[in-house]
Amino acid sequence: MTKANFGVVGMAVMGKNLALNVESHGYTVALFNRTTSKTEEVIAEHPDKNFVFTKTVEEFVNAIEKPRRIMLMVKAGGPTDATIKSLLPLLDKGDILIDGGNTHYPDTIRRNAELADSGINFIGTGVSGGEKGALLGPSMMPGGQKEAYDLVAPIFEQISAKAPQDGEPCVTYIGPNGAGHFVKMVHNGIEYGDMQLIAESYDLLKRVLGLSNAEIQEIFEEWNEGELDSYLIEITKEVLKRQDDEGEGYIVDKILDKAGNKGTGKWTSQSALDLGVPLPLITESVFARYISTYKDERVKASKVLAGPSTHFTGDKKEVVEKIRQALYFSKIMSYAQGFAQLRKASAEFDWDLPYADIAKIWRAGCIIRAQFLQKITDAFNKDKDLENLLLDEYFVEITKKYQASVRDVVALAVQTGTPAPTFSSAIAYYDSYRSENLPANLIQAQRDYFGAHTYERTDKPGTYHYDWYTED
Amino acid sequence: MTKANFGVVGMAVMGKNLALNVESHGYTVALFNRTTSKTEEVIAEHPDKNFVFTKTVEEFVNAIEKPRRIMLMVKAGGPTDATIKSLLPLLDKGDILIDGGNTHYPDTIRRNAELADSGINFIGTGVSGGEKGALLGPSMMPGGQKEAYDLVAPIFEQISAKAPQDGEPCVTYIGPNGAGHFVKMVHNGIEYGDMQLIAESYDLLKRVLGLSNAEIQEIFEEWNEGELDSYLIEITKEVLKRQDDEGEGYIVDKILDKAGNKGTGKWTSQSALDLGVPLPLITESVFARYISTYKDERVKASKVLAGPSTHFTGDKKEVVEKIRQALYFSKIMSYAQGFAQLRKASAEFDWDLPYADIAKIWRAGCIIRAQFLQKITDAFNKDKDLENLLLDEYFVEITKKYQASVRDVVALAVQTGTPAPTFSSAIAYYDSYRSENLPANLIQAQRDYFGAHTYERTDKPGTYHYDWYTED
Repeated sequence: MTKANFGVVGMAVMGKNLALNVESHGYTVALFNRTTSKTEEVIAEHPDKNFVFTKTVEEFVNAIEKPRRIMLMVKAGGPTDATIKSLLPLLDKGDILIDGGNTHYPDTIRRNAELADSGINFIGTGVSGGEKGALLGPSMMPGGQKEAYDLVAPIFEQISAKAPQDGEPCVTYIGPNGAGHFVKMVHNGIEYGDMQLIAESYDLLKRVLGLSNAEIQEIFEEWNEGELDSYLIEITKEVLKRQDDEGEGYIVDKILDKAGNKGTGKWTSQSALDLGVPLPLITESVFARYISTYKDERVKASKVLAGPSTHFTGDKKEVVEKIRQALYFSKIMSYAQGFAQLRKASAEFDWDLPYADIAKIWRAGCIIRAQFLQKITDAFNKDKDLENLLLDEYFVEITKKYQASVRDVVALAVQTGTPAPTFSSAIAYYDSYRSENLPANLIQAQRDYFGAHTYERTDKPGTYHYDWYTED
Repeated sequence: MTKANFGVVGMAVMGKNLALNVESHGYTVALFNRTTSKTEEVIAEHPDKNFVFTKTVEEFVNAIEKPRRIMLMVKAGGPTDATIKSLLPLLDKGDILIDGGNTHYPDTIRRNAELADSGINFIGTGVSGGEKGALLGPSMMPGGQKEAYDLVAPIFEQISAKAPQDGEPCVTYIGPNGAGHFVKMVHNGIEYGDMQLIAESYDLLKRVLGLSNAEIQEIFEEWNEGELDSYLIEITKEVLKRQDDEGEGYIVDKILDKAGNKGTGKWTSQSALDLGVPLPLITESVFARYISTYKDERVKASKVLAGPSTHFTGDKKEVVEKIRQALYFSKIMSYAQGFAQLRKASAEFDWDLPYADIAKIWRAGCIIRAQFLQKITDAFNKDKDLENLLLDEYFVEITKKYQASVRDVVALAVQTGTPAPTFSSAIAYYDSYRSENLPANLIQAQRDYFGAHTYERTDKPGTYHYDWYTED
């Protein structure tokens, strides 16, 4: 019997689709699932595929050629640990376990170190693109032993999405241990920011300009032709078209305004807080989801808290274009923050992250895929040590062109009582970042006053403490 | 030999001052420090005090009457665990260990549970007010076994600050295990917010209105007479007065604009992210400190990134009053968020937090002490289950009066290119909270589109998934 070239554990939809994807490129794939009936179903659904059906872990491991390449597509956390534990005694030195789950990067760092002690390679890979991506080509962010990744690379390069610009595969080696899952986490944080920015744009178009779904749909359709061209704008225009499947009218108007989350945006913000990196835009977008869940309180508050009139009387067309510019500008702030976080993490964990390639592999397959990512790749190709995207020529030029519009949009939102937490945060970040002097001198004075925390001076090096309690 | 009524471990400045404070109320206090010379110094400095000098842990424990009340004033983390470990074999059932350090609340929850197994009571108490507070009267936030706290209460009520309004001691039983340290953490987060709001006000007065330090100093002096009356405003006006002790001019102008932090603001934000509570204002203030540390990048960015003119031509007096109103309004948003966080934590950890009393014990001794806290006490006294401060009558009225000013101030900041992250965040929170409908419906549609995450409907209960991939 010929051995399988690849193994997949976990026959839920993501695992199944990934196995189908690998098989479609000419590989024989061994399948295993804790509950055998699930594996049987997959085999029954796809009788013509080069799948190897296995009922036990032993059968599964024995079915795969060495060094084994085994991808775990099981639930993050405990189930992943349990799966690893069951496989470990059966594996040989040099085998490669690949965790394709939505794992928190500290777990990947831990597992990579633990397994290395047994001579087993461990790759943690972000897989973005949802069910469809897993089947047809996801964006993949693998981290772990480089020499192990090299043995997996031929398969990953085949199964991943291909960038429309140049046909390059949306996968690259990200770095050691948890680097891949870290980058996937930041990807998801950026996704939260992108979605909130789109939501605020939609809200302004609807609440302030009073446009209809059809009109807003057309606007997003237009935006998707230009520099905002991206998957999330594309599905927004799709969403706005759809009729209610349970009654009259548009489905978007029937969906309750309570946004859920799976925790990856939260992780991104918590990591930035630990790293000492400002990540206000993504964090505001996480909090915007949280506040949306307080629906009952909001309904109460809407009846008692005062606000201005939202009535708008200017040139709507002009404001629509300003919102478009504000959206692009704010998106740039969010990515600048996210890449600054990657930079700090790279130094902290000694990952040597390939920023240009990270932006490159996000050009297709993943949720945040967008034309705009090419600009980020270009910026890091010009200067791989670029401290912040905002210091790159293209971003200097585009922010110069658009900054006035963001200011107008934020002022409009604030004066009409329309919440725009991420737009506001974007301009505050921009103005903070371009401030040679911030009022943090006063904060340092206060800290030294009440806690003797000391301060530095502008005119000479050293650490100082002022004798505040002696009256002048 | 008479036994000591109280013991203090750790003779750094906080421990020493707390011991002096306890002694001054007629108690005999046993002192211990790992390095004996430290204890000798304290005894030598204060030969007339009722202190019991001890050289070993055994001597120290034996010197104290039972049930022993022992306060640990050592470094949070490892040193606290080491101290507990060294004391534990010498203690008797019913003894009370009190951790007065700046401990992260999960550690207090863990220690309280571990020690309870040995019959030892463990109280984790927040102590705010710095060195001066420890000596003359801090605000104290104790959590742990209620029956143990009752044995400590007489001393804590004597040594704590007294509220100017009614002379009541600034200490109350907060709740079980980590409740006290949690509340202290949120206190510190609020402190970050208050300081950043003051810094942004100062920045607008300076950068936009072009006022001198003397003029700004006078403004803060005036503000401190009204509803903004608070310790942080008071020290701000003091700071702005002081001349450079190393040269010419005002000291505030010589202090480098890089704000440090000890991590408690970060903890507060990370906790809110875990609890699912929106805490944007405090979090923006943490990020504002972070961005201030990127001084070199900011200097570079200031030379290339475009911004508007900060030139102002309106009525300065009018704007000063608007900034005052914006500051008070935004402070309210920050406290509303902080108390909402306490509420969520109380439910999560089963703490039954006494919100009215928490605001009450912050009226003196601590860094955020302010007249305004009485309003919060009043609100929770009227309704102890109040979901959010913004739903209380006083806050409904004051936000109604001031909301237009915040809008003008944020618009002014944004249009003059002056970063105002917390002011902006305050109005965005207010407008989000009072929005019956938020654009989170679109976010839910997107999530269902790319990840089949499902959504709820506005017109009927249940969870729905739309078949997005079928073309209309």
